[in-house]
Amino acid sequence: MSGHKGPLVIVGGAEDKHEDMSILREFVRLAGGTHARVVVMTVATKLPVEVGAEYIDAFGRLNVEDVRTFDVSSRQAANRESACKAIAEATGVFFTGGEQIRITELLGGTKVDAVLHTRHNEGLALGGTSAGASMMSSTMIVDGSGDTNPRLGIVTMAPGMEFIDGVVIDQHFAQRGRLGRLLTAVAMYPHHLGLGIDEDTAVIVEDNELRVIGRGAVVIVDAGALLFSNIDHLKKNDPMALYGVKLHVLPTGYHFMLRERQPDVERLTRGELL
Amino acid sequence: MSGHKGPLVIVGGAEDKHEDMSILREFVRLAGGTHARVVVMTVATKLPVEVGAEYIDAFGRLNVEDVRTFDVSSRQAANRESACKAIAEATGVFFTGGEQIRITELLGGTKVDAVLHTRHNEGLALGGTSAGASMMSSTMIVDGSGDTNPRLGIVTMAPGMEFIDGVVIDQHFAQRGRLGRLLTAVAMYPHHLGLGIDEDTAVIVEDNELRVIGRGAVVIVDAGALLFSNIDHLKKNDPMALYGVKLHVLPTGYHFMLRERQPDVERLTRGELL
Repeated sequence: MSGHKGPLVIVGGAEDKHEDMSILREFVRLAGGTHARVVVMTVATKLPVEVGAEYIDAFGRLNVEDVRTFDVSSRQAANRESACKAIAEATGVFFTGGEQIRITELLGGTKVDAVLHTRHNEGLALGGTSAGASMMSSTMIVDGSGDTNPRLGIVTMAPGMEFIDGVVIDQHFAQRGRLGRLLTAVAMYPHHLGLGIDEDTAVIVEDNELRVIGRGAVVIVDAGALLFSNIDHLKKNDPMALYGVKLHVLPTGYHFMLRERQPDVERLTRGELL
Repeated sequence: MSGHKGPLVIVGGAEDKHEDMSILREFVRLAGGTHARVVVMTVATKLPVEVGAEYIDAFGRLNVEDVRTFDVSSRQAANRESACKAIAEATGVFFTGGEQIRITELLGGTKVDAVLHTRHNEGLALGGTSAGASMMSSTMIVDGSGDTNPRLGIVTMAPGMEFIDGVVIDQHFAQRGRLGRLLTAVAMYPHHLGLGIDEDTAVIVEDNELRVIGRGAVVIVDAGALLFSNIDHLKKNDPMALYGVKLHVLPTGYHFMLRERQPDVERLTRGELL
């Protein structure tokens, strides 16, 4: 493995585990193929046995030889040498869904946290779905209402696990009507690009580039160009006014440059996609 | 009444009919206040008696002296002199929800259609909620899926009643997760601004200006600035790629200039809102 940061596979939840499994298949490829050593982290869920078994089965169907689940139900468990050793030897670590706050509360600052970052910086592939997607960023959405217009206070934010900077991630995006809550988040933190990832859809982040795979799409909302917002004048639950948000929709095969905050139009002019 | 075009009150559905009734109250004000003569058009619904009674009650609570319902279940009914007379004498006509295609199929090209346009051009206030909102524009969304990413063919479009040009309207916007279908519509017709109106929320259109009232917000999506779309290369149900859509969120009290395709920023710099 190179000294190059590993890829991130950030999944919007409900990824296919039975049919063509395009997302989990791509995760396995990035983790080294059939010789991958995959650790499934069930820390986010309160049903680690059931959820773990699903992924053991799915990665088994993808012919991964070495898959194990690892649950963390206490911070002590996240400081055990055996845990660190399993992650140190893995080529891919995948975080299941559940509650993102469990991931940061149970892992944050532990030895497992440290070894995840060390190994990711050395090339370890990191994946996460639903709660496991949200926690990837430096600032994460913990909770919030769906099916609403942007309103002050409808979204609870917290520090995430810091595997990627400059973005805030929402999952089950179209399926749960989460435009309002993602806009609320980026209106508060316009430095951050909002990534709204649909179910059975993922972004793969390698260096500065993000690409999309899966059945749905990723909506990227960029409040960096905001002409006006009324956010300074609001009380809790007041509706937001936002002028001039930029929005991109990227389905499978499309690319986005994170630092430049723009889709990879060059790739299109080279005719690589159409 | 002047020779000036009347106001439009375009409601995203489920407007309050029992508490402060801010939207229906504003419609009544625009229609002439307590001396308004209001006709409730139940043509969109298959339950004209029940739906009509709700509005008779609501407008009654707002002290409108003269309210009547008018149902159209055949094109013959929409050509009767009595119908035209009722509308000719009204100061406000309000369309209930139901199916928008019933409005265009039953009224389109009839004498009632003609008198509505003539009277609207002379100042008649026109309101509509849900289906009654969608039909206001020249091109309308007839049907489509919610809670999905933009995909070719998920939205059925048809000619509307042409009370307003240059926009396409969607209702129950946040509540039914309709970003995907509104983006699909404007990606096909980028000349049209997409208005996504929440429940218990309305836009009032007077001349070139749109303003928002009610509890939720209006999302305006402008595909005019689109840098790229893959729409020419898609088959039915394929996911769309869209780069550079502009998006504005306007809650109650905010204004938008339709021809300029931009929020009324001048009003803000004059400090009128904050």
